[in-house]
Amino acid sequence: MPKWLKTTDPGFDAAFAAFLGEKRESSADVGAAVAAIIDDVRARGDKALIDLSKKFDRVDLAALGLRVSQGELHAARKACSTETLDALQIAADRIAEHHERQLPMNERYTDEVGVELGWRWTAVESVGLYVPGGLASYPSSVLMNAIPAKVAGVPRVVMVVPSPNGELNPLVLAAAQLAGVEEIYRIGGAQAVAALAYGTETIAPVAKIVGPGNAYVAAAKRLVFGTVGIDSIAGPSEVLVIADKHNNPEWIAADLLAQAEHDTAAQSILMTDDAQFGRAVEAAVGRQLKTLPRGNIAGESWSVFGAIIELASLDEAPALADRIAAEHLEIATVDPEALSDRIRNAGAIFIGAQTPEMIGDYIAGSNHVLPTSRTARFSSGLGVLDFMKRTSLLKLDGKALAALAPPAMALARAEGLEAHRLSAEIRLKSPSGRPS
Amino acid sequence: MPKWLKTTDPGFDAAFAAFLGEKRESSADVGAAVAAIIDDVRARGDKALIDLSKKFDRVDLAALGLRVSQGELHAARKACSTETLDALQIAADRIAEHHERQLPMNERYTDEVGVELGWRWTAVESVGLYVPGGLASYPSSVLMNAIPAKVAGVPRVVMVVPSPNGELNPLVLAAAQLAGVEEIYRIGGAQAVAALAYGTETIAPVAKIVGPGNAYVAAAKRLVFGTVGIDSIAGPSEVLVIADKHNNPEWIAADLLAQAEHDTAAQSILMTDDAQFGRAVEAAVGRQLKTLPRGNIAGESWSVFGAIIELASLDEAPALADRIAAEHLEIATVDPEALSDRIRNAGAIFIGAQTPEMIGDYIAGSNHVLPTSRTARFSSGLGVLDFMKRTSLLKLDGKALAALAPPAMALARAEGLEAHRLSAEIRLKSPSGRPS
Repeated sequence: MPKWLKTTDPGFDAAFAAFLGEKRESSADVGAAVAAIIDDVRARGDKALIDLSKKFDRVDLAALGLRVSQGELHAARKACSTETLDALQIAADRIAEHHERQLPMNERYTDEVGVELGWRWTAVESVGLYVPGGLASYPSSVLMNAIPAKVAGVPRVVMVVPSPNGELNPLVLAAAQLAGVEEIYRIGGAQAVAALAYGTETIAPVAKIVGPGNAYVAAAKRLVFGTVGIDSIAGPSEVLVIADKHNNPEWIAADLLAQAEHDTAAQSILMTDDAQFGRAVEAAVGRQLKTLPRGNIAGESWSVFGAIIELASLDEAPALADRIAAEHLEIATVDPEALSDRIRNAGAIFIGAQTPEMIGDYIAGSNHVLPTSRTARFSSGLGVLDFMKRTSLLKLDGKALAALAPPAMALARAEGLEAHRLSAEIRLKSPSGRPS
Repeated sequence: MPKWLKTTDPGFDAAFAAFLGEKRESSADVGAAVAAIIDDVRARGDKALIDLSKKFDRVDLAALGLRVSQGELHAARKACSTETLDALQIAADRIAEHHERQLPMNERYTDEVGVELGWRWTAVESVGLYVPGGLASYPSSVLMNAIPAKVAGVPRVVMVVPSPNGELNPLVLAAAQLAGVEEIYRIGGAQAVAALAYGTETIAPVAKIVGPGNAYVAAAKRLVFGTVGIDSIAGPSEVLVIADKHNNPEWIAADLLAQAEHDTAAQSILMTDDAQFGRAVEAAVGRQLKTLPRGNIAGESWSVFGAIIELASLDEAPALADRIAAEHLEIATVDPEALSDRIRNAGAIFIGAQTPEMIGDYIAGSNHVLPTSRTARFSSGLGVLDFMKRTSLLKLDGKALAALAPPAMALARAEGLEAHRLSAEIRLKSPSGRPS
């Protein structure tokens, strides 16, 4: 049974605060083990990758080779159904089209003093994409991570994916090819992160690593951060559905379960101003659960972390939704746009009852890598900017320098930095050295 | 004596790689101590802040109060010279004007299938700014961190600054007021970071923490990351100057020393295609060092980490500069724009001999918080976007859903996520529940 919280209950504030504070995932303390793996890869390179893959993935990379061959890529594609490949192609095209709109503009202007200012965006020179093996090996995630990097103009996009018992998901390899990623290594875990960060004989290091992974991968990304860039560390996923009574409870129930089936640590929350509707959704969840192949996972997520929040009025929704800061927010009310406009914290908003979140997961074109676990308070979903960086540009001539130097020199002196002061003063006092 | 590397030497590649790999700062392992401090603040709130400030800052906050009063702010401003206040005001105005150009555009469009896509940028709801105490307490950094947050529209900007022996830098308080920051607490160290992340009786928690600090502050920021957002962890600062022989060696020497005087771990690098010019700069550095109040610091930085890289041709500069990925890059050559265009990795580029980096530190309007220690390969300087986040928006009607559902359902099935599939299918098969 999910929690049922009612804003008019006297204990609501405390119960809601406790609900927000719940930990949904206890990350195993794997720091020491991961540090040892990283050291091993730095010291022994490919040899360490081969030994660790034998140990953790039960696969002999000395025989198979670290890199997935063109022949294997071709075979993987042939192993996929046409229907799925076509769907992946539609998704890839839509993702590319949407993300192209995120390409930022360079800026350059001259102000009234004659100072030229601006900035220039450039792509990160190389990116490594981590893809989990086994059950969580999702082709859709390959597209969502690789295509924004390609749109950004990253010259080298590399993928790593473990092959437990030698197996690779053909759909993952097909998605990589659709996204234009052809440099793929069959390695995973902390050793793959170390190889991407520091390089080995076979694998040149990258400048940034993105993509989800287990506790070992997350710990390794934290440890190599600084040497390379990383994306955010993904936590368990969640959906908040704000729905009034003018909805089919079965639709809303299916949306809550689509979230819950990901993972027992996933969270599905319904917020409604109608208790009877809430009960109808709860009953529909119970019915649908029995029909789902992943019903055990979804059922555990729903009963342990699920919640129904009963509002006195939909007017209470924005403030509470901002505190939840959901990764996914569906709004199925009479005027969903008005409610959406009042919300600050959400990874993505799905507006109106005909916009189930799964459309965003797969095909809409927007990114499904979104801030989880309340981090939408301060971070954004994955996008093109995550694969670019901005270089600030500044250009003065002698006249502009003469205008700006005095206050800059005053501040340098106030901060006790006389060499800073000198580097302006010396230009005002002595010739450039450049033949005029 | 700084290193002298010559690209035509047979050992150059190895020497340059070793140079890039040098560690300039060994971070003390303060993780356990910091974790204990954070736990203490979470458990005891204000009481812990008072005890820890007594211990580390030798100041009695039970008597003084945690928050800096309006009276103190007023007195601080009166204690500053008019010249400095005026300079701070010029800087503040220019920083605000420049950063307003970074405000991002929202997006909303309908594609050919009838799907509405877009995104909306919103400000982070609250931001904490860490300002170091003592020597590194720079008013210019207060402006550089606080003003972009204000321009972004952050409703609540809070500052923390330790007051060792009860002392606060009046310029720091004056800069905070100029930037519109009035909620200021006289706390520092890991305890201040913990208070900002988790809140205490007096201090409401924030959503993001920015600003530089010592090893304790950096470790605390790493530990609270996830609960709150953080900016990048600042490393020691560096400048790369690319200069041909048509320069006054004294100008270039002053620029190298302006970097070196920050910190013994700072790094100043000259890259030139003229050995004689390089030697002239080296001699000028030696002369100027004797005149500088912080000559000991600058001298140690220059002799331990300084370097002169002699090129066969300026054509070699871009590839090497990209590997250095300097925080600050000055280009003083005959055609500095052409060289600038060929460089991918730099935090900020100062174009032409009349653009000393110190102008960017203080007054140009661009941000002086820039990616250090080679992180310009994957990250950008501080800006307005660091105080905003993007919410993805998606809206379909029944017709658009009917168009997109089939490929989405194919992908859901391929990934084994049947509840995802169901949440689209059920909409195609059953009525909405909404009165039509």
